[in-house]
Amino acid sequence: MPTGHDAQVRALPVSPSTGALRPLDLHEVRVTGGFWSDFQQLNATVMIRHAEDWMERVGWIGNFDAAVEGRLPADRQGREFADSDVYKLMEAMAWEIGRTGDAELEARFQALVDRIEPVQEEDGYLNTHFGRPGQQPRYSDMEWGHELYCFGHLIQAGVARGRTHGRDRFVEIAIRAADHVCETFGPDGLDTICGHPEIEPALAELARYTGERKYLDQARLFVERRGHGRLGEIWFGPEYFQEDVPVREAEVLRGHAVRALYLAAGAIDVAVETGDEELIGAVTRQMSRTVARRTYLTGGMGAHHEGEAFGDDFELPSDRAYSETCAGVGAAMVGERLLLATGDPVHADLVERVLLNVVATSPSEDGHGFFYTNTLHQREPGTTAATDEVAARAASSLRAPWFAVSCCPTNVARTVASFGTYVATADDDGVQLQQLATAEVRTTLPDGCPVALDVETDYPHDGRVRVTVREDATRPWTLRVRVPGWATAGAVLRVDGEETTVLPGYAEVRRAFRAGDVVELDLPVRARWTWADPRVDAVRGQVAVERGPLVMALESTDLGEDVNLAAVDVEAAPVERDGQVLVRVRTAAPTERDWPFPAEPAHPDTVADAGLVPLVPYHRWGNRGPSTMRVWIPQA
Amino acid sequence: MPTGHDAQVRALPVSPSTGALRPLDLHEVRVTGGFWSDFQQLNATVMIRHAEDWMERVGWIGNFDAAVEGRLPADRQGREFADSDVYKLMEAMAWEIGRTGDAELEARFQALVDRIEPVQEEDGYLNTHFGRPGQQPRYSDMEWGHELYCFGHLIQAGVARGRTHGRDRFVEIAIRAADHVCETFGPDGLDTICGHPEIEPALAELARYTGERKYLDQARLFVERRGHGRLGEIWFGPEYFQEDVPVREAEVLRGHAVRALYLAAGAIDVAVETGDEELIGAVTRQMSRTVARRTYLTGGMGAHHEGEAFGDDFELPSDRAYSETCAGVGAAMVGERLLLATGDPVHADLVERVLLNVVATSPSEDGHGFFYTNTLHQREPGTTAATDEVAARAASSLRAPWFAVSCCPTNVARTVASFGTYVATADDDGVQLQQLATAEVRTTLPDGCPVALDVETDYPHDGRVRVTVREDATRPWTLRVRVPGWATAGAVLRVDGEETTVLPGYAEVRRAFRAGDVVELDLPVRARWTWADPRVDAVRGQVAVERGPLVMALESTDLGEDVNLAAVDVEAAPVERDGQVLVRVRTAAPTERDWPFPAEPAHPDTVADAGLVPLVPYHRWGNRGPSTMRVWIPQA
Repeated sequence: MPTGHDAQVRALPVSPSTGALRPLDLHEVRVTGGFWSDFQQLNATVMIRHAEDWMERVGWIGNFDAAVEGRLPADRQGREFADSDVYKLMEAMAWEIGRTGDAELEARFQALVDRIEPVQEEDGYLNTHFGRPGQQPRYSDMEWGHELYCFGHLIQAGVARGRTHGRDRFVEIAIRAADHVCETFGPDGLDTICGHPEIEPALAELARYTGERKYLDQARLFVERRGHGRLGEIWFGPEYFQEDVPVREAEVLRGHAVRALYLAAGAIDVAVETGDEELIGAVTRQMSRTVARRTYLTGGMGAHHEGEAFGDDFELPSDRAYSETCAGVGAAMVGERLLLATGDPVHADLVERVLLNVVATSPSEDGHGFFYTNTLHQREPGTTAATDEVAARAASSLRAPWFAVSCCPTNVARTVASFGTYVATADDDGVQLQQLATAEVRTTLPDGCPVALDVETDYPHDGRVRVTVREDATRPWTLRVRVPGWATAGAVLRVDGEETTVLPGYAEVRRAFRAGDVVELDLPVRARWTWADPRVDAVRGQVAVERGPLVMALESTDLGEDVNLAAVDVEAAPVERDGQVLVRVRTAAPTERDWPFPAEPAHPDTVADAGLVPLVPYHRWGNRGPSTMRVWIPQA
Repeated sequence: MPTGHDAQVRALPVSPSTGALRPLDLHEVRVTGGFWSDFQQLNATVMIRHAEDWMERVGWIGNFDAAVEGRLPADRQGREFADSDVYKLMEAMAWEIGRTGDAELEARFQALVDRIEPVQEEDGYLNTHFGRPGQQPRYSDMEWGHELYCFGHLIQAGVARGRTHGRDRFVEIAIRAADHVCETFGPDGLDTICGHPEIEPALAELARYTGERKYLDQARLFVERRGHGRLGEIWFGPEYFQEDVPVREAEVLRGHAVRALYLAAGAIDVAVETGDEELIGAVTRQMSRTVARRTYLTGGMGAHHEGEAFGDDFELPSDRAYSETCAGVGAAMVGERLLLATGDPVHADLVERVLLNVVATSPSEDGHGFFYTNTLHQREPGTTAATDEVAARAASSLRAPWFAVSCCPTNVARTVASFGTYVATADDDGVQLQQLATAEVRTTLPDGCPVALDVETDYPHDGRVRVTVREDATRPWTLRVRVPGWATAGAVLRVDGEETTVLPGYAEVRRAFRAGDVVELDLPVRARWTWADPRVDAVRGQVAVERGPLVMALESTDLGEDVNLAAVDVEAAPVERDGQVLVRVRTAAPTERDWPFPAEPAHPDTVADAGLVPLVPYHRWGNRGPSTMRVWIPQA
């Protein structure tokens, strides 16, 4: 396989050996302040521990002890895929240890390795739910068993560990598992796939990490096998696990959103490493149509609660938005991979949108509760979840401390811990700032030219991004700062007192930079109205407010009454005052009818001017107790 | 129990012993022509046979043979509730035999009895899925086992048979099963309930049929036990099977729509027979709020695919309408019961709406395919189902010959076969025509005054209802003809050449009728626009067309292109021409965007006048091949 980039040792979740851009790793980018630093701090001090504590409490970590002590299946806790959440926690820990060197966290990580290691069988198989007397046989339920899905998360955690620490016991566990998968499912082995994609990007990344081609070949085999009907019939139909159409023939993402996105990520990895232009083209087109027609304003994906699935084109109901947090993580994974492969910053726009409006929405402000789904319209006030109970369902009305299926909290944790790897990319010509965050960027261009940048910004709340060069260049290079797609007018680049208007894409400065050079980008983060394509029937006659990259929401907490009959006056622009975004709201008294479909247009009898009402960033809604909320608001 | 009405022998699915109105039975009302006669003919000649053939083919009837031959559980086919569909088929057969005396059908009915009878165990238990070696024990899975649900349908079929034929072998099977249920779940027995209500209305009806109080007491016990958390936790939450709130404390129907409606039906039966005003008041209020806030224009109920459930108030997305056919049957059951209990014709309006726009929508024109769900907006052309394959899913995009869960076809069959019992009611003062159909009505008022009416009408297509009296009255009595709620203006009653304007409710004529008297009602069935409460976000800015009781739909088959970007001009009223309803449609060329949420209102670039386009009655859509369809159409 090609080795243009040094994929092995770089502290990255995704480290392609080739492609338009090379991502800067955790050692090259340190997030030092602002929004993302605060989020990483919450993750480090609360969320990771919270997930670990809950998985001890509900026995998912204990499943490994039960395996060692011969107490399975009697004592098995959780769903068939419970092992995977332990691995995702460990991946989060690995990134966090890599980021900060936290010794106490390192000890906890090792304690988990101690409990997992003895469960791995002689041939590399490792799963607490299958294969023992009284359990189903290995690989007897490819549709729902999630065994390869669990291995995928184990391998991703192993790669994270290897790249941040070096090859150790845990990395060996992951490699033994991957070897087992290759032996079992190779060209001469079981000719099938897992109902939940995830092994594909994991094996591709392990190939990058180890330099061993066989993992890539296996990932490719899994990608190519899918879509030919190898899995059995299920209630949700074959598109649920993308078994309806081969990956390279599909036109759009469909079925279970997280499955579709993980598969797309793996397909891109395989395509990049094998130079398969057809495949990367196919996935790019699928993703483009998905973004253009099957994505919520928040970047959320998945319009159906049933099957946690994509709906048809433009079927994007606000009140039934499933928009699973994990699909946000999956969209960021796919967006980042397409950015690296193509260099097109539109993919970084998607990453920004989902990180700030889906992934960041999931945790509560205190880090002890999570949204699983992310509705855009809460019709009835939710109930605050008990802080000491597992929520049975993926409810959209409340953040809950833990779920019976609890994929989201650990997915958020691993994403936030590795956020630094989304910040900047490089190519031979220079460095690109992709996600705008206060950070120290230190790297070296391929010819040895050093790059040292300090980025300061209050983004996403403020539009000023100030980049200070800290080291003299040995030759001219190009600094690019992404201008997000929403900044269609008013973005200004300032260099040496000279201002240039810049458009979405990259703002560029090319020169032999000297220490002390300052480049400033001013993005117009003023609140603005956003409309919808008329085919999005669900929000016809409605308007949303965005401010910079943040989607805003009207919450009953601020309105002082239920939002269901609120409307906004769009004659004037939204007002910004004292750090708040306000819109003029009119509220109507409901006309109560025995039948809701009258023979005349239903103009409300009474409309009251509720005055200027503050909106909240969508990712912060629901933090002040039960409320009703809407992102899309009818026009008055 | 009270015996004001003669409940035992009357050929009725629901025959209350008391209440405002007494329903006329199959022997008192003969449907002789028009829409419903055609539908009954299709049912008799195709649908019943179709269901029987499919249940032979997929082995659901064969399960009874397998039980006799000791081949269970190995040879068991279908879901845990497969027995129930055989019983629903037999109920349909019983009504059909009662209606027509079809000897060949009688022989097929007896053949089924021959196969079922030996499966019943000594103590009355009868189920092909539980209790044998290798099967789960009886009543070990009250959440999902459906054992009492199956008994409920067996008992309803038994009552249908008893009332149309007399007490025979099959009726005895049903009674033995009911006795077993009373013994097992009585006050001193298992203190639990079934995850799927149905036993409640069945036992109440058996009490009415046999005159035995114990069945009513048991039904009441089941109603009162529900809502206290006796069933275990499930993914969908306790509201799924109405275990969240006791029946008499609930404010609205919620959870699984069919479960909620069957339970409401049983609660009304219990309340009526026990004189429980509080309970009947509670269910009436729940149903009123459900109709006012949780019901589609079609009368369809259930906004969520997930859990086949009611959504929140006003959450009525067209494209995700689940609106299960069986929920339509359930709504008709509840509406009819409330009509009989209260006399309020608004409940007959609901029955009319769901029969014509949900139940009648399910079967294809040839009777060999069925909708399980009834969407109000088809975004992508469905695929025509293979005529020889079981559909795995309750797809909304196609009518399929049979489903893995196939509750709907038999439910339609039993409802259509017993349609005559919805047509007319009586009280001491006279007769009420509730469902407008060509029919012969022959009954006797309590004091012996004979009533003989011939009703002629092309309703729902035409608004003229002509009632000819065929027998002299012995005293003055009141003929009431229901004026549907939609006929808010222009309904005219004509008697002896004199015209009176009548309003929704009942048009009344009181006199000592003479043979040859004619009463004519003219209903204004002209096509009209219908709007929605502004809280129904899903259809904001849209309008529907109704014609008389029929909801109309715009189908791509008529438009000649996809309906997703169609809009209607509402300046003028819909046009009626040559028996068609036409509206002026404008179609827009889609503006393709990379991101569907622009910064400016998305006015289409090109709007074309598609001219006057015919609409189809919603219940007939999808009969001309794959199409896109919408009931609610954006206003141009």
